[in-house]
Amino acid sequence: MTEPRLSRGLRDLLPDQTLARQEMVDIIRRVYELYGFVPLSTPAIEYLDVLSGSAGQETQQSIFRVTNPEREELGLRFDLTVPLARVIAQYADLPRPFRRYQVSPVWRADKPDKGRFREFTQFDLDSVGTESEIADTEIIAGMCDTLSALRIERYQVRFSSRTILNLLLDFAGIPQERSVDVFRVLDKLDKAGIDKVRLELMQGYKDESGDFIRGLGLVQNQVDRIEKFLAIKSDSRNDVLTQVRDLFGQSPNIDAVARISDHLYALGYGDDRVSLDLSIARGLAYYTGPVFEAVLLDAPQFGSIFGGGRYDNLVMRFLGERIPAVGASIGVDRLLAALTYLGKIGKQKSTARVLITNMDPALADDYLKMTWELRRAGVPTELYIGTAKGPGKQLKYADQYEIPLAILYGTNEKSQGVVTVKDMSVGREQTK
Amino acid sequence: MTEPRLSRGLRDLLPDQTLARQEMVDIIRRVYELYGFVPLSTPAIEYLDVLSGSAGQETQQSIFRVTNPEREELGLRFDLTVPLARVIAQYADLPRPFRRYQVSPVWRADKPDKGRFREFTQFDLDSVGTESEIADTEIIAGMCDTLSALRIERYQVRFSSRTILNLLLDFAGIPQERSVDVFRVLDKLDKAGIDKVRLELMQGYKDESGDFIRGLGLVQNQVDRIEKFLAIKSDSRNDVLTQVRDLFGQSPNIDAVARISDHLYALGYGDDRVSLDLSIARGLAYYTGPVFEAVLLDAPQFGSIFGGGRYDNLVMRFLGERIPAVGASIGVDRLLAALTYLGKIGKQKSTARVLITNMDPALADDYLKMTWELRRAGVPTELYIGTAKGPGKQLKYADQYEIPLAILYGTNEKSQGVVTVKDMSVGREQTK
Repeated sequence: MTEPRLSRGLRDLLPDQTLARQEMVDIIRRVYELYGFVPLSTPAIEYLDVLSGSAGQETQQSIFRVTNPEREELGLRFDLTVPLARVIAQYADLPRPFRRYQVSPVWRADKPDKGRFREFTQFDLDSVGTESEIADTEIIAGMCDTLSALRIERYQVRFSSRTILNLLLDFAGIPQERSVDVFRVLDKLDKAGIDKVRLELMQGYKDESGDFIRGLGLVQNQVDRIEKFLAIKSDSRNDVLTQVRDLFGQSPNIDAVARISDHLYALGYGDDRVSLDLSIARGLAYYTGPVFEAVLLDAPQFGSIFGGGRYDNLVMRFLGERIPAVGASIGVDRLLAALTYLGKIGKQKSTARVLITNMDPALADDYLKMTWELRRAGVPTELYIGTAKGPGKQLKYADQYEIPLAILYGTNEKSQGVVTVKDMSVGREQTK
Repeated sequence: MTEPRLSRGLRDLLPDQTLARQEMVDIIRRVYELYGFVPLSTPAIEYLDVLSGSAGQETQQSIFRVTNPEREELGLRFDLTVPLARVIAQYADLPRPFRRYQVSPVWRADKPDKGRFREFTQFDLDSVGTESEIADTEIIAGMCDTLSALRIERYQVRFSSRTILNLLLDFAGIPQERSVDVFRVLDKLDKAGIDKVRLELMQGYKDESGDFIRGLGLVQNQVDRIEKFLAIKSDSRNDVLTQVRDLFGQSPNIDAVARISDHLYALGYGDDRVSLDLSIARGLAYYTGPVFEAVLLDAPQFGSIFGGGRYDNLVMRFLGERIPAVGASIGVDRLLAALTYLGKIGKQKSTARVLITNMDPALADDYLKMTWELRRAGVPTELYIGTAKGPGKQLKYADQYEIPLAILYGTNEKSQGVVTVKDMSVGREQTK
């Protein structure tokens, strides 16, 4: 016999979890369809060279390799951004801006951990072919509208911009080509704290496990200037803009961010929902402008559940042409876990609202007609067709699936022209 | 530069096709949720030994192999039935009957051909853990309800049963252990015609390409009896039952099929929609009872777009225990192609119903407010944020995506407090 099992980092979603995920994804889809985004679907398998060019070394190692009968080198996609870039490059006649969403699984052979899987679902949305700050505004507003549609009351979308961080590099006398290293370290601020970030910017340090974390070799004066910048904090986006102008002087880079903030104010996305947090750097190398993420204030332990930014160079390696783009990615599994934790989703174990018990084989056609009458009236209904004969076990089945109503019908009921309706939640019986 | 391309047999679904597929899948989902089926989600990657045990040799060769950092032998699923069998065996406490649907891609490295892809989507529904003929009835009725929900007027669900075909084996003096071979040949009747089927049942023949098709070696008298059986045809299920009883005599095998037919009559699924066609054998080895398929009468060239049957032994190789099951699989891509051919689906290129043109950067906040006002009122709306400055190219963009309405607004309109609404379908302009 074969042992029924899954390889590590893979998992099944049983019906209650799949129902919750479908409900959540449908809600998000409705938000982006209201925004006029169009859905795209790409295959799971891509050529390895298509996939790997944009990936950092760590991501490259985590690609699941696949081969076909022609012995080509293929792999499973590790994100939805690379396939988007390929599509943009491959179909020259796609009208631009191309604003698409895609919800699909991606695969990464990382070390599996609690809540970390090797197959997980992403919901991505991107506007390709536009430099407009309205596109950035829309992505941020869409995060807010999505979280509201999911009935999350308290959340915060934080944004910043790589172009402001570039001003910081000048201010601190750091060459622009070191930006990726510096931003990668700054991105650890939330998790590692300022002391460790300071050490990593300078001489490095030994972490708890004894491993040596190499420093970037900045000098005290540079790190002081970075810390001055990181000290800019306010609940008001306008205040943050004033402070950063005080520090760096007037700059078109700051004006561009101010316009996004103003657009958001005009649409009613106030400081309570969207904050300008200049410590947000996002680790990825490919961002070129605004960057953003969202956290649920009542479930901060789930981290950032939305993340994105502007990346104007991604299609470059296919086309040799710069095509601006901005987008965000929702970690569907992480968001679902957070919503479940907050009790906002996942309340249904079944789709059926009524179970018709099946006690007398001679009444089969009556049961069937009753079932279809309810279904045709739009009431999700199941007729019990398992092996249990008596009502007790059949009602237990309704209990297991949390089906709210059960209907009992036998020769007695038939002769009287009634059915017995049992409300499974309170156990009370009604005859009608 | 990397060439943006896909490996053979793989394809992208661009937005109009993805929208059509989503619409179709949502309609099918609603039918099965009304039936009380629950959704299941399993990973794309399974252990190779889990996958391959149930697969015929041809299917085994078509499995896309995958490996992980632990160098285990894995593969991409080639159907949704094997993962279901694994789930049933792995989660002993799933309430039974377990009636699930799953809509997911599957992968087969077959020879690609027109309309034949190496990644394609299936929509499967199965009732596991029940011998009840009501379960078979429900699968057949569900096919009808699905096709009606998809606005297909003329279709035919054809069914038969392996148990009746077993009577044929006795009648023709063929040992039961040859059933798989015989049924495989009978299943070719529709495509190959009676003459070739007859030759393949007997001495074999040379096909057009000169290849020799080996015969099963039956004798004339046996084939005569098979042909007598295949001659049973009627538009009435009851007539077919009478004819088969005339040929074979009374039998519980025939009675079981008659009960399914009677249930269907009771629910209003008459001879016009469901026929009893005893030549339906379905090639697969694992069927044990009723088998069925559906064809669209106005698009017969797409073949059977639903297929299924009862398979009571599938979980056996995991559990050593017989667990009855019946189900059907919808070829989502094939059905979508047929619906598109019939003009029943695929009419939207965009989700936006309104495009707000963007002519004056100074009015950005006005445009944004207008856009969000419409979105918040539930009207899918897009604000143009591309590079085109004048109205002509912006309206062309609306044309490309077939967005029905465009709104034009400039300083003139602002001073007069009006907007210009352009109906893109007739090109007529209205000011309001």
